[in-house]
Amino acid sequence: MLTNVEHIGIAVRDIQISNELFSKLLNVQPYKSETVASEGVTTSFFRVNQTKIELLEATNPDSPIAKFLEKKGEGVHHIAFEVDDIVSEINRLKEDGFTVLNEIPKLGADNKLVCFLHPKSTNSVLIELCQERK
Amino acid sequence: MLTNVEHIGIAVRDIQISNELFSKLLNVQPYKSETVASEGVTTSFFRVNQTKIELLEATNPDSPIAKFLEKKGEGVHHIAFEVDDIVSEINRLKEDGFTVLNEIPKLGADNKLVCFLHPKSTNSVLIELCQERK
Repeated sequence: MLTNVEHIGIAVRDIQISNELFSKLLNVQPYKSETVASEGVTTSFFRVNQTKIELLEATNPDSPIAKFLEKKGEGVHHIAFEVDDIVSEINRLKEDGFTVLNEIPKLGADNKLVCFLHPKSTNSVLIELCQERK
Repeated sequence: MLTNVEHIGIAVRDIQISNELFSKLLNVQPYKSETVASEGVTTSFFRVNQTKIELLEATNPDSPIAKFLEKKGEGVHHIAFEVDDIVSEINRLKEDGFTVLNEIPKLGADNKLVCFLHPKSTNSVLIELCQERK
């Protein structure tokens, strides 16, 4: 089951500048910053009620975020839904015809197991499923 | 104060097809559909916890959604934050240098007063502020 919009990921060119911008917009400071070396990304997180805003800056030119910025520029990169059981959700969505980018959940930012759905099967919206790691 | 991610708006070409797609993805049916003639848009809403997913289909070729689809294709169109006092938030954000698209809140879908911020001042993310109409 998809239980919550856990976060919205936004690709930015300069996370320092965007941290300031979103601090003003949301009227709250980022509560953490984290680099995920395997994804080539530095993130920062803002909390708005039960949903986080995650800013994403590329740490190298071959990372998915660098490629996204090159192709589409800054903007919303993905929507992440919290799930109660990521393995069963992956199976359910595969059976329903969605294209799963990683069939085995991988470790993402924020101590989460994550799985992405290919945007070509979801109206061009990159969808992340995530489950808190126990 | 921005109190919640009230909804995420997604521009789609064919709302019937996308209703089916998001019904499968979210494992829930849309709970309402609404046409906002002044904006040239037909919407449908899905609920995931405290956040809605709003699909947006253009009803005429001059509408903002039609132009968005032409320029960028399908995908996330805007993020809407619930605010407790839309007039004071508009003033606060203007003072902080954000570009407000309508200084006077206008009536949007779902019985809300809404205001949009220009994406050039917000990392290319179209931001909506919305407040339930009393």
